Amino acid sequence: MKATVMYGAHDVRVEEVPDARIVDPTDALVRVTRGSICGSDLWPYNSMPASQVGNRMGHEFVGIVEDVGAQVRSVKKGDLVVAPFAWSDGTCEFCEQGLQTSCLHGGWWGGTELDGGQGEAVRVPQADGTLVVLPVGPDHALMPSLLTLSDVMGTGHHAALTARVRPGVAAAVVGDGAVGLCGVIAARRLGAEQIILLGRHPDRIALARQFGATEVVSERGDEAIERVRALTGGLGAHSVLECVGHGEAVHTAISIARAGGAVGRVGVPQQETIPDARPGFYANVTIAGGPAPVRAYMYELMPEVLEGRIEPGRVFDRITTIDGVPDGYRAMNEREAIKVMIKF
Amino acid sequence: MKATVMYGAHDVRVEEVPDARIVDPTDALVRVTRGSICGSDLWPYNSMPASQVGNRMGHEFVGIVEDVGAQVRSVKKGDLVVAPFAWSDGTCEFCEQGLQTSCLHGGWWGGTELDGGQGEAVRVPQADGTLVVLPVGPDHALMPSLLTLSDVMGTGHHAALTARVRPGVAAAVVGDGAVGLCGVIAARRLGAEQIILLGRHPDRIALARQFGATEVVSERGDEAIERVRALTGGLGAHSVLECVGHGEAVHTAISIARAGGAVGRVGVPQQETIPDARPGFYANVTIAGGPAPVRAYMYELMPEVLEGRIEPGRVFDRITTIDGVPDGYRAMNEREAIKVMIKF
Repeated sequence: MKATVMYGAHDVRVEEVPDARIVDPTDALVRVTRGSICGSDLWPYNSMPASQVGNRMGHEFVGIVEDVGAQVRSVKKGDLVVAPFAWSDGTCEFCEQGLQTSCLHGGWWGGTELDGGQGEAVRVPQADGTLVVLPVGPDHALMPSLLTLSDVMGTGHHAALTARVRPGVAAAVVGDGAVGLCGVIAARRLGAEQIILLGRHPDRIALARQFGATEVVSERGDEAIERVRALTGGLGAHSVLECVGHGEAVHTAISIARAGGAVGRVGVPQQETIPDARPGFYANVTIAGGPAPVRAYMYELMPEVLEGRIEPGRVFDRITTIDGVPDGYRAMNEREAIKVMIKF
Repeated sequence: MKATVMYGAHDVRVEEVPDARIVDPTDALVRVTRGSICGSDLWPYNSMPASQVGNRMGHEFVGIVEDVGAQVRSVKKGDLVVAPFAWSDGTCEFCEQGLQTSCLHGGWWGGTELDGGQGEAVRVPQADGTLVVLPVGPDHALMPSLLTLSDVMGTGHHAALTARVRPGVAAAVVGDGAVGLCGVIAARRLGAEQIILLGRHPDRIALARQFGATEVVSERGDEAIERVRALTGGLGAHSVLECVGHGEAVHTAISIARAGGAVGRVGVPQQETIPDARPGFYANVTIAGGPAPVRAYMYELMPEVLEGRIEPGRVFDRITTIDGVPDGYRAMNEREAIKVMIKF
């Protein structure tokens, strides 16, 4: 079968790999119908040391169950399923709390041991705790939005929840990538009165405004901080969704938070430390977030998609076949595309 | 009048200063009856650059109102009052939310502009928003515990609240100073099932056990982390109260937090950054806390003291007159005393 393998920075290849197959009785074999490239894939795309074996890529996918192991109960052959970006057993203490990204027996897609979602098929470990059945066909018009439940929509929701967005607050979203845009959707859905997007790309800003952003700040650094403060009566935002991950973005996020406010960080941290230990402390700013338990959020967000109340699938502005995946990486990296969907 | 002035590291003097007096119509003049030395006073005690003018010291005090400005309504001459460690107007957006330590028109005691609580009298700005009347006489047996409401008991409570202590959790308290010990009281009061104290001083450990600590970890560094993990089924504590402030303590606090758990930090940060940005992120550990709004907590905690349910005043193990304050700093710094009360 064909799959995407990254061998180093800017070295993404689509090649033949061994066919995915059932190994454990808790596995399912899923034929991928839709996959996508994530903003977080761009971190290794720009920094991965050269590797002989390469890493299988992709953690966002929808597909059809082709086979299941003997112990799998919740999905069956022929089901259309969406996979969260982390797999999980569904039964451990953390899964029971709805924090599947800390599952004691779970893990991440791809790498050197597992299939990734940017390939034709995936062996899904712990299928019962991982996959969620979609109640539509594989070519349903809402498929782009349903695909975002595997990561970016749930991640934006996590940013909003951990930033404590609630009715009436002033929210700020740092980052205009797909996660930031989904953060705008989530902040609006949770009742934020003001939603300030910090971003600089006209196409993304336009979409953010349609999603509910009330203001846009395109300045950088201290000027951006000043602008957000000016837009919030000098006080800062109650809720800041940090959707980038590098140190400057985290610094901005903490600096624009109101005293007593919260930063929900979902951008994968690119530094070893969190800046502004003192100003954040003196202002009682809470720093929360992490990998979103999107599996838990699917039940809440899927009806929103199916009933047309949110349209996160609009973040996809390019579709490719698997052979176009390397160029998809390039296009996202050069900000030519917001997010690329792979149609199998 | 006599007051405590710090001129540099290890240079604390008691000397004559101008008498405190009413300046603004919102001021009160308070004759101090009890003050104390705070663990946070030891940071400048060990690091303050030499100064010609010096800093007036002390932010924890109880006293009798001697005079009030024309606009003061809530306290009157003769009232016994307790002061929170920050003064606040009581009317701004943050005060109304109960975050008086971010008051838009408030500030901190002492320094070069204001009196401190380690002196015979204090001009209290914004008296209505700052002082709280005590319903007892100045020599009441519960005075030590009532005095802790000005800082350490409220601060321990803030650590517990921001670490999300709730019934049944495993809590860990990093630091066996007066704040850590009050954190043990607070964690127990909020229903923690397990309370692990990380500390190394026998006298403090003994008191912590009486306050409700169920286990004590006296190892350092990685060994301490291993021990806490072993005591919590390998998972870590749901709630970690960080009551020290230096980087190693914060690293320990984040490292012993359970996935999805929270660190409530109340130790004044001694570093510019928060460590462990990545492990904390991957485990969805929330980092919260800051200067405690002890003014808000007085209403909840004072009845607990008056009815004898908590005895935070037991953290005071030495009493001095004002002339003994310099030696009190030395004794606390050398861990000869847990906390020193000043009786005027």
